[in-house]
Amino acid sequence: MASNKDPNVDNEQTKRKSRVPAAVAKERLVATTISLLRTEPFYEVTTRRITRESGLPLAALSRNFGSLPGLFDAVAHELVKRFTDQFSEYGPLDALTNPDLILRTRLIAWSIGQGADPSLFRPDPSAWSRIGMERQQRLAGVDERMGTAWAEIVTFVLEGYSIFSQTHTLNNQQTFEDCITVMSELQKSLRSLEAQLGWDQPIA
Amino acid sequence: MASNKDPNVDNEQTKRKSRVPAAVAKERLVATTISLLRTEPFYEVTTRRITRESGLPLAALSRNFGSLPGLFDAVAHELVKRFTDQFSEYGPLDALTNPDLILRTRLIAWSIGQGADPSLFRPDPSAWSRIGMERQQRLAGVDERMGTAWAEIVTFVLEGYSIFSQTHTLNNQQTFEDCITVMSELQKSLRSLEAQLGWDQPIA
Repeated sequence: MASNKDPNVDNEQTKRKSRVPAAVAKERLVATTISLLRTEPFYEVTTRRITRESGLPLAALSRNFGSLPGLFDAVAHELVKRFTDQFSEYGPLDALTNPDLILRTRLIAWSIGQGADPSLFRPDPSAWSRIGMERQQRLAGVDERMGTAWAEIVTFVLEGYSIFSQTHTLNNQQTFEDCITVMSELQKSLRSLEAQLGWDQPIA
Repeated sequence: MASNKDPNVDNEQTKRKSRVPAAVAKERLVATTISLLRTEPFYEVTTRRITRESGLPLAALSRNFGSLPGLFDAVAHELVKRFTDQFSEYGPLDALTNPDLILRTRLIAWSIGQGADPSLFRPDPSAWSRIGMERQQRLAGVDERMGTAWAEIVTFVLEGYSIFSQTHTLNNQQTFEDCITVMSELQKSLRSLEAQLGWDQPIA
């Protein structure tokens, strides 16, 4: 695996670089991209730079991910996976302050500003959003409809906070803690709200 | 150099273009930038292009706004102003679907990805966030502390939704309406939550 990493790879090997198995190439491209995104402005994380620092030919990116946004989508998935692998259980603070989740959110927002199709970044339905929904259902003790709505709200808060917290005038530690208190307390009332709205039935 | 390229300005006026009053230049640069941002990928809305299409010398941008992110900050303020000027009263749907607010949110998120300092985009404390906070206080009938926390939460939801709604697997019309229902219903319970938390006092 380390063997082809060197950008000074022998010229005679050039043609064989494409022989790196697809799974290895993919993993290497994702890992390299994540390290670059952590330190560089996103616009400097180019196809050329990623492939060069991965020790792969330029075409490896499009061959494995179709496009740079396609690779960024895979990166977004990997960042969520690193978060969920790290925590068997987590609280709001863990999610709100996790560097992997924040990087994921900022990368997607920036990519959309660059003109990428937002639907490209839809998670695997079996993954993040489903986990989040089931988690919210369990925590709040509610059925699917309320669990889904609340998970969406929580996710929007998380995504909004990751990018915009420092742009809010009112941002300070006390307000931040108050927001978490309010969200946690409101979560406790979802079960009775669910009954009041007649949502305490599984979605047909 | 760029100044002579503009067909709408007399050549003899070239040297005098910098005499355009600062207020007029600022307004023109903001208006031009907004129209460009509506149709172009953000990275194509450059200093050169903005000043050229505004009929102003290249230096007019830095003279009036310090930098391109500084101009984007003024644009973000203007987009919020257009929204608040349009509505004397508004509901969640008005805010969630307003093109000016969505453009503002996406522009700020993209700028942060480009490396801009997020705190550059802090609103005037007397403006947007203050209006939002007082509005939430009034709607929910709560005091300042709860009004502040709830306004932050609502703003994060709005900001998260503006950028990420199309990236959520669970995104559909029913879930969207459910989220609005849940937020509206929860708002009604803030007053009793405020009392329960002992927050029904003005902030000292």
